[in-house]
Amino acid sequence: MTYSRISASLSSPNVDVIIDMGNPFLNRTVDGFLKIGTVSASRVAAEETYHCLRKGSVSSHKMKETLKKMCKEGVYWGSIAGVYVGMEYGMERIRGSRDWKNALLGGAITGALVSVADKKSGDKVVIEAIKGGAVATAVEFLNYLT
Amino acid sequence: MTYSRISASLSSPNVDVIIDMGNPFLNRTVDGFLKIGTVSASRVAAEETYHCLRKGSVSSHKMKETLKKMCKEGVYWGSIAGVYVGMEYGMERIRGSRDWKNALLGGAITGALVSVADKKSGDKVVIEAIKGGAVATAVEFLNYLT
Repeated sequence: MTYSRISASLSSPNVDVIIDMGNPFLNRTVDGFLKIGTVSASRVAAEETYHCLRKGSVSSHKMKETLKKMCKEGVYWGSIAGVYVGMEYGMERIRGSRDWKNALLGGAITGALVSVADKKSGDKVVIEAIKGGAVATAVEFLNYLT
Repeated sequence: MTYSRISASLSSPNVDVIIDMGNPFLNRTVDGFLKIGTVSASRVAAEETYHCLRKGSVSSHKMKETLKKMCKEGVYWGSIAGVYVGMEYGMERIRGSRDWKNALLGGAITGALVSVADKKSGDKVVIEAIKGGAVATAVEFLNYLT
């Protein structure tokens, strides 16, 4: 069961979203999408709020643009996270063990898929795969450090 | 005690580095530096190897450039990771609890510090702080997902 616990601000009003897709693979993917999508949308909101504070003005046009950007970035990063979490889980099932190599492989596949989806080709797909693998491995190592 | 376990390739020759700085804060920082620095240097090595394979030629000049780039990127990302891990630990000590807000605050401070170190100023420092916080929070959420 996917149990997404999302806190929207520092004073912690919690929004709990529970979605059960009936499949651990799908559950993880949806959970990753929701959580990272929310973080990404919040980042855009924080950045745009700062820009508004700097300029000292808020227009309804700007608000609309911000909302659009929040949705776009939320969906984009959420999708990447969903693909990655699903891939890592898939690697764990295929390889039968839990270690940082799942993250490396999952990240590499995700990087390749994302770059193909972005209509990049040839060299760039490989480079993005290497980057994805490196970032995922770094994230995995950070788990054990913090 | 800092116990850095670094695997350099998929066939896993392990290099174990043990460094004790006599202080948990410093130990974590050094550990983060070593681990993420290694990942980053490996990424550069993989990318450059791919470029060489594509071109089908390896020159000693290119090798030297790659080594230089590996060191530079390794130290750069290693430092960022070290600062972040230290900051997150500091937040944990100051706030007295372990949750994703440590990551958010630690990431924001790290983002601000890194952008100041990069000689950016004003707006950019704040934006980098927001980005750092968002990335760290996303990483923290991924911990629980994978």
